[in-house]
Amino acid sequence: MDYNKRSSVSTVPNSAPLRVGFIGLSHQKGWAVKTHYPAILQLSSQYQITALYNPQPEVALETIKALKLTNAVAFPTLESFGCNAMVDMIVISIQTTYHYSVILPLLEYSKSNPNLKYLFLEWAMACNLDQAEQIYKAAAARGLQTIVSLQGRKSPYILRAKELISQGHIGQINSIELTGNGGWYGYDRPIKSPNYIYEMGNGNDLVTNTFGHTIDLLQYMTGSYFSKINSMVFNNIPEQEVVDEHGQKTGQKIKKSVPDHLLFQGTLMKGNVPVSCSIKGGKPAKKFTKNLVIDIHGTKGDIKLEGDAGFAEISNLVLYYSGTRANDTVPMANGAVPPKNDMSMYDAGKEIMEVYHLTNYNAVLGNMFRLYESIADFHYNTKKIPSLPSQFLLQSFEFEGFPTFMDALIVQRLVDSVYQSHLLGSTLDVTSISQFPAFDPMAQA
Amino acid sequence: MDYNKRSSVSTVPNSAPLRVGFIGLSHQKGWAVKTHYPAILQLSSQYQITALYNPQPEVALETIKALKLTNAVAFPTLESFGCNAMVDMIVISIQTTYHYSVILPLLEYSKSNPNLKYLFLEWAMACNLDQAEQIYKAAAARGLQTIVSLQGRKSPYILRAKELISQGHIGQINSIELTGNGGWYGYDRPIKSPNYIYEMGNGNDLVTNTFGHTIDLLQYMTGSYFSKINSMVFNNIPEQEVVDEHGQKTGQKIKKSVPDHLLFQGTLMKGNVPVSCSIKGGKPAKKFTKNLVIDIHGTKGDIKLEGDAGFAEISNLVLYYSGTRANDTVPMANGAVPPKNDMSMYDAGKEIMEVYHLTNYNAVLGNMFRLYESIADFHYNTKKIPSLPSQFLLQSFEFEGFPTFMDALIVQRLVDSVYQSHLLGSTLDVTSISQFPAFDPMAQA
Repeated sequence: MDYNKRSSVSTVPNSAPLRVGFIGLSHQKGWAVKTHYPAILQLSSQYQITALYNPQPEVALETIKALKLTNAVAFPTLESFGCNAMVDMIVISIQTTYHYSVILPLLEYSKSNPNLKYLFLEWAMACNLDQAEQIYKAAAARGLQTIVSLQGRKSPYILRAKELISQGHIGQINSIELTGNGGWYGYDRPIKSPNYIYEMGNGNDLVTNTFGHTIDLLQYMTGSYFSKINSMVFNNIPEQEVVDEHGQKTGQKIKKSVPDHLLFQGTLMKGNVPVSCSIKGGKPAKKFTKNLVIDIHGTKGDIKLEGDAGFAEISNLVLYYSGTRANDTVPMANGAVPPKNDMSMYDAGKEIMEVYHLTNYNAVLGNMFRLYESIADFHYNTKKIPSLPSQFLLQSFEFEGFPTFMDALIVQRLVDSVYQSHLLGSTLDVTSISQFPAFDPMAQA
Repeated sequence: MDYNKRSSVSTVPNSAPLRVGFIGLSHQKGWAVKTHYPAILQLSSQYQITALYNPQPEVALETIKALKLTNAVAFPTLESFGCNAMVDMIVISIQTTYHYSVILPLLEYSKSNPNLKYLFLEWAMACNLDQAEQIYKAAAARGLQTIVSLQGRKSPYILRAKELISQGHIGQINSIELTGNGGWYGYDRPIKSPNYIYEMGNGNDLVTNTFGHTIDLLQYMTGSYFSKINSMVFNNIPEQEVVDEHGQKTGQKIKKSVPDHLLFQGTLMKGNVPVSCSIKGGKPAKKFTKNLVIDIHGTKGDIKLEGDAGFAEISNLVLYYSGTRANDTVPMANGAVPPKNDMSMYDAGKEIMEVYHLTNYNAVLGNMFRLYESIADFHYNTKKIPSLPSQFLLQSFEFEGFPTFMDALIVQRLVDSVYQSHLLGSTLDVTSISQFPAFDPMAQA
């Protein structure tokens, strides 16, 4: 089975594209126009932008003009945007700081839109766990199919690693080491960099952002949540030097309150696997190791993932795999024993090495594109899954699907536990953070 | 300054070599004959073996004969060995299990030997911290100059790294990652391997042995003890498969109680530096990384140490260094500013790379040899240090000298804290473990 096989979604006829209402799309700048927009543009049979909201209405109008969004209407207020019935899916790509204050009223207004089915939110869900839990509950009560852009789950490298692991090619995992460099939070602050990412409480710090994305991928690849964690959080660079466009120091210094280093260690529930993790900010010399290294050691082989940038979800990676076919058959994806006459499945002791790398893969676009593809696959049931539910709450560790608010909330709880562990000076049992009570939407209404 | 310059000890005249009484030397097998003996043999102007003790007296006699120790006498009892005045230095190289029961009576007996000045003990000091503290106190009360074979401190690679760091060539250290493979404690147990190293309480486990040596070197290189630590200790392989000389499984399984993995993280006192450390046992496939990797990241450069075996103290290593001369002068060893007319000291921005490797360096012999050299340097004051004390209690982070019982006790306390942190599930403040009360030998007498 090849989980990296491209979706056949583009063969879906151009009948009823999902109508997208967008909060946070601006033709001038920002993440949305660089990632969401090209993905939607490439999937024009599946998605059509029909509504925009921006607190500055002229930005929405200009964006419609500049991007030639001929089917889109700019709404003057969040309320009019939310009530509008011409939207099947709302995408929110704004500063995390504003998620909470936008989403809760939006969900209220959206009760007037009977067509709304999907709510797509950027990671992080919110600035803190309490807000995230409230957002999760409100969206669940509204009965929406949620999506969160933990888009690294769609990275072909992460999926290839997950495939190798789940098919037993490295045996039992016995330990994992992860080191990353979270860029931003170091000695220098680029003069054009917004201040809010350096101030605690905006949901954009090294732990929430860099660690959050990366540890979600580690859990996803291994198919296990953590049972026990300990962390130490550092702000060793309380003041940054402002540098200009050419990287030259301006002489100005600005205070920073977000962390610049995280030490994290823990055990995975499945197999009690020790995981060691060190994530730093900044761009100090780091000559002898890549900015992202994930070493997964198993009883029968190893996987190494490397990236030039410390953000697995937006980096083009290289995957190294080494394994030995032991004195047993190669497990098949469905757990079946291969046919006796297929000798290729029985070449015991054969050492296998693989370097997996897509030279021109643009991970910033590619992972987001694949995430949109997955949503379309679900909506149109492109893969003809006979028992596809009309909604799913949790992707968990499935290859198919996409991360939901519940998946994101588990990461948000882990991030919160990381800060708690640091503050308390304790190793914490986090077994329960991946558990949810049976959800009764009526009770919340 | 070149701290790796060989000692001039071999020019010392052959007048009065240190007379060595040895417990644990056997010509047939063991660590002592492979390491201590060749070192002493090469330093025959400085050391002479004059006494041997073995609980089986015939082993001592045979060893004298086989190794042609013409000046040595085999003593039938620990008491007669300890009382004998023909010994200046006692070397103990036996199972850690027996350290406590041998050393305490030995120190009593040795009161009859007015010439005894040196006591040289293998790492680990003892099976547990309480025993180690008692051994430390008893040796201090006896007024001996102690030595512990934390011999990695004499490794040319460790000294080169320490030199680069202390001279500011990587700037301020901002983070460290360490991964190691401690061999023995994995899935397989070689049939000839003694059982005691797999049973807790014998002072020979992954934490005490592999981690103990390695973390001592990390502290030594960086010139800092830890202020805060957290650890998780794993015994994920409670039963090992016995393998024969050819590595083939015998079908036999034996229980193991020592750990097979340690996760350790902490902060160095100096600079609040985050340190991440993952040490595993066993020989699983580990294709894409060396069995020992120490990554030291600084504000101006990086040092990476790599070794094929996870034991820094007995492995031949490779040191990689990269740094940039910043817009300031190169610091000199003594902190002085270089003369203005020496332009080579002012070539700002020049990037420097160095790979330091001694192809034929035998680290097992070499580091021990250099340790013996250091003791001789001290005894004969080879380096003509004007104010050399007659005894020193602590090497601490000095280049000169050798690790003492006090140095070793700090490591033993750290090892104990590692187990405590795991058991308590707490991050521990370990600032005090490197502090000793002013020692009053009379109070202990």
